[in-house]
Amino acid sequence: MNSTIRTDLALEAEALWRESQSAQRSPAGVQASRAQRGSFSVTTVEILDERGEAALGKPRGTYITIELDALIRREENAFPEACRLLSDELRALLALPPEAACLVVGLGNRAITPDAIGPDAVDCVMVTRHLTQCLPEDFGAFRPVSAVCSGVLGTTGIESSALVRAVSAAVRPAAVVAIDALASRSPEHLCRTVQIADTGIVPGSGVGNAREALNRDTLGIPVIAIGVPTVVDAATLTLDLASRSGAAPDPASFGDAGGMIVTPREIDKNVRDVAKLIGYSLNLALHDGLTVEDVDMFLS
Amino acid sequence: MNSTIRTDLALEAEALWRESQSAQRSPAGVQASRAQRGSFSVTTVEILDERGEAALGKPRGTYITIELDALIRREENAFPEACRLLSDELRALLALPPEAACLVVGLGNRAITPDAIGPDAVDCVMVTRHLTQCLPEDFGAFRPVSAVCSGVLGTTGIESSALVRAVSAAVRPAAVVAIDALASRSPEHLCRTVQIADTGIVPGSGVGNAREALNRDTLGIPVIAIGVPTVVDAATLTLDLASRSGAAPDPASFGDAGGMIVTPREIDKNVRDVAKLIGYSLNLALHDGLTVEDVDMFLS
Amino acid sequence: MNSTIRTDLALEAEALWRESQSAQRSPAGVQASRAQRGSFSVTTVEILDERGEAALGKPRGTYITIELDALIRREENAFPEACRLLSDELRALLALPPEAACLVVGLGNRAITPDAIGPDAVDCVMVTRHLTQCLPEDFGAFRPVSAVCSGVLGTTGIESSALVRAVSAAVRPAAVVAIDALASRSPEHLCRTVQIADTGIVPGSGVGNAREALNRDTLGIPVIAIGVPTVVDAATLTLDLASRSGAAPDPASFGDAGGMIVTPREIDKNVRDVAKLIGYSLNLALHDGLTVEDVDMFLS
Amino acid sequence: MNSTIRTDLALEAEALWRESQSAQRSPAGVQASRAQRGSFSVTTVEILDERGEAALGKPRGTYITIELDALIRREENAFPEACRLLSDELRALLALPPEAACLVVGLGNRAITPDAIGPDAVDCVMVTRHLTQCLPEDFGAFRPVSAVCSGVLGTTGIESSALVRAVSAAVRPAAVVAIDALASRSPEHLCRTVQIADTGIVPGSGVGNAREALNRDTLGIPVIAIGVPTVVDAATLTLDLASRSGAAPDPASFGDAGGMIVTPREIDKNVRDVAKLIGYSLNLALHDGLTVEDVDMFLS
Repeated sequence: MNSTIRTDLALEAEALWRESQSAQRSPAGVQASRAQRGSFSVTTVEILDERGEAALGKPRGTYITIELDALIRREENAFPEACRLLSDELRALLALPPEAACLVVGLGNRAITPDAIGPDAVDCVMVTRHLTQCLPEDFGAFRPVSAVCSGVLGTTGIESSALVRAVSAAVRPAAVVAIDALASRSPEHLCRTVQIADTGIVPGSGVGNAREALNRDTLGIPVIAIGVPTVVDAATLTLDLASRSGAAPDPASFGDAGGMIVTPREIDKNVRDVAKLIGYSLNLALHDGLTVEDVDMFLS
Repeated sequence: MNSTIRTDLALEAEALWRESQSAQRSPAGVQASRAQRGSFSVTTVEILDERGEAALGKPRGTYITIELDALIRREENAFPEACRLLSDELRALLALPPEAACLVVGLGNRAITPDAIGPDAVDCVMVTRHLTQCLPEDFGAFRPVSAVCSGVLGTTGIESSALVRAVSAAVRPAAVVAIDALASRSPEHLCRTVQIADTGIVPGSGVGNAREALNRDTLGIPVIAIGVPTVVDAATLTLDLASRSGAAPDPASFGDAGGMIVTPREIDKNVRDVAKLIGYSLNLALHDGLTVEDVDMFLS
Repeated sequence: MNSTIRTDLALEAEALWRESQSAQRSPAGVQASRAQRGSFSVTTVEILDERGEAALGKPRGTYITIELDALIRREENAFPEACRLLSDELRALLALPPEAACLVVGLGNRAITPDAIGPDAVDCVMVTRHLTQCLPEDFGAFRPVSAVCSGVLGTTGIESSALVRAVSAAVRPAAVVAIDALASRSPEHLCRTVQIADTGIVPGSGVGNAREALNRDTLGIPVIAIGVPTVVDAATLTLDLASRSGAAPDPASFGDAGGMIVTPREIDKNVRDVAKLIGYSLNLALHDGLTVEDVDMFLS
Repeated sequence: MNSTIRTDLALEAEALWRESQSAQRSPAGVQASRAQRGSFSVTTVEILDERGEAALGKPRGTYITIELDALIRREENAFPEACRLLSDELRALLALPPEAACLVVGLGNRAITPDAIGPDAVDCVMVTRHLTQCLPEDFGAFRPVSAVCSGVLGTTGIESSALVRAVSAAVRPAAVVAIDALASRSPEHLCRTVQIADTGIVPGSGVGNAREALNRDTLGIPVIAIGVPTVVDAATLTLDLASRSGAAPDPASFGDAGGMIVTPREIDKNVRDVAKLIGYSLNLALHDGLTVEDVDMFLS
């Protein structure tokens, strides 16, 4: 039954597997650990081999999830602290040599609020590729960063993956960072959790239209994925509630929910806030010695 | 238990009462009827006295609900047909003498998509009050119509009702039409149902922040309410599913859902579309002899 | 000839009078002075009596103009420095007792970029009236501030002045602050000059549609105006260039320019930036002991 | 002197050459003709050889300019009539075989109103490439059309031309249509003139940042350009007025105007309107047997 519960979070997939098996430990081929870093908790799920892939339904690699509850509670200094934490994790996962170029891709549809995380985050990315080329004396200390929003098939007629492949071939970055909205199982994770992974990403999976993957196989370079769950499928919610309460779920009782999502009431603001966190953290991860104030100044 | 299921739709409140009583008929003090008009079904619930008020938890008056499924299925000519139907119902409920002035009020918060129905509808309302005053030779055939968006307490510091009272006192219309987002019990009604009522409205009830009413008692003139459900409380959904499946709902299982809503995946587009329908229908109801094309031309 | 050159800036009107009279000194009934405050220059024009009113074509009162060139050049710390300077000037002009309530009004049309200064500034105003009422224990130190955007006649059918009168009567503030776009004579002043005045304001004068005034006569309380020139009439530019170059202006040569304006190429960004400065400065002027960071936190 | 007057309109360049030479006729290597088509006037300038290229400062090819005054005066049926006229001219210039694929490119910056013509027009283009691939039974009658907005160097770090080359290589269309804002000499042409040309386009020339060309040489396929003048350089206006009035222009008198533009007061609305005209006309030109109503339905 749980197999129909949709989640893009490795941390939820691991918990679901344990629930379904009434197990205390991770499945074979998976290692999971949790740590507290300042005000935030960080969970790392490593899928090590095909046993782990089969159990969690995700490709092997490292998935790091940061829970942003302190940010949501608006604790003092939570924004810069979250930026530093996320940028540290991103920097470690990217492992880029100095001066290696990076292409940032915002996936998803800017016109649909829960799907706008990628384009909104790209608005906060410091684009420097042209400056390092034209003004090397002023911008030589910056990494060359370019950024595009791939749009969605319905607005371009072109698969996101084909577009990114084409742009990547033209720009020849050392790595791609792809940002997208995700779907989660639990409402508690919506807009307050960021997952980063070195596995690449399947554009649009968060909104139910899975497409060709963006990963090292399809692009030939590392693809770091940054994702934020913004919706729970209403169907998933129904199944999940039924399974938690022990009732037999009545599939007919929610037959019309196919087009429905569960989302925070303040989704517009929440998406904007977490997109800003991602953009700023990426800037700190990609360029040395920057502060949040420097980013403010550059983007203004 | 049903008393905690939230709905602003009289048609759902009536059905809930019957479910809770295992009754076939409406409660005493309530008359309900349903009719098919072309491609659309129209339900009328009349609350006649305090017995009806107590049973349905709403003030006495006439509530007319139009279900727009043909529009959603994008049947040919569904938009002009829905405009005509809705404008006929509005015209009957308004019962305004020729030349009597009307003030249209968009309630809700334009920055929160599911709450933007009122402001978006006002963008489609033909504002004519100043034209009938300054250019009577050209616009003498139009009714004087003014329009305001009241904003929300958090952005103005002023209660919507106080603001509307103040504007109404300045403009002295014969009637107020207030447009707002609602909450419903059933996902199937979201963005595809319009309720109009001669009872006035409590601003913000759809988004869970009920305020002082706008009605004949508070404004001294008739207040026609136009509402569209755009969200289901996640808590309501949980209770409703539990009650339908016969399981005891576990209040703890969804404790964090307080800030969560169920909404259509395409809420941005759906809100825009139904707001346009409301604006256009209101124009046809308020001015004689207009066509949808005339409204297009006026607003462009 | 100069009388057809349009400007809403008292500092330009004073300079025009001197040019037209080939005079070194201000006209009788006018005192003008200029001072440097840190990186910014501040000009004060006082119109003392009807001779001054006739010479400059503006009502008597104090007009203070701050030139923001350092901000435009993006000098370090220019934003907080400009905020402090502007808030000091506003605080002196407002001269409000502690706890006296204030109503902030954004004039102009949000949908027309050069006319959006008022609404955009209101988005950066801390609205506190409802908080001081409902949560006095948390917000007792704040002044009660409410805020509205009056819209424009074409979108509401109601004169801005009538709307503000109505709201003011309902809210009963001790003073009104009205923010609007202005027209200037010189392109160099566009979006880099803020004029504040204790004379009230005529809504829409900046965009060529003058309306009934908002001032102590019409509202019964002090009205502080904050204005920013965002456009030069193309006709004004033509006349001005002709007069500066000594050529006889050919009225026919620019007959079609009636609907044309001169504006900065980056008007969208410039309007947003100066609107933010106004909102933040107003917050610092209205509430004691706030910092720019406090405002960031409140508004986020 | 006229050589410093900037215009992207071939029709203005031809007139400027005649003025500068006090000539009645077009320069050698140029043919110009004007015709009335219903309510609109259509001017064709053909640059035939290098003499014409040198005289007008533009590459050889056919430039067709449609003046939309009837549309601006909002004459009845002006919109569908202008669509038909523009789509006829586009269809002749494109000369595409049935089923040949087309890539539409919106150049320019959506965040700067006078530069948003391209992105806004793309919003009105029917994107069909994915539908003809996935649903050939339903969409077999449509031409495969894809569409992208290239962004600008400052937001992507990538030259528009490089981006379009990359996408074009991936999608392999038979032709590219590129839409951009232009600069004109005369305020009378702003937002009321559409120029189409078979010469390709230099992105950003309208906003003063000329880039590498998009044309048959750089893309290997025909590039049809659609441009609309939205600004006059303030410096151009100054020079032009001086030259018309016979005065010696004083370069110092307008030294600060470098960042200034002349634009219609209602630029936001005008850009939206003419972008819609371009998108709709392109749809009628690219697909057989469509009406304006069909496009409305497809895009809604």
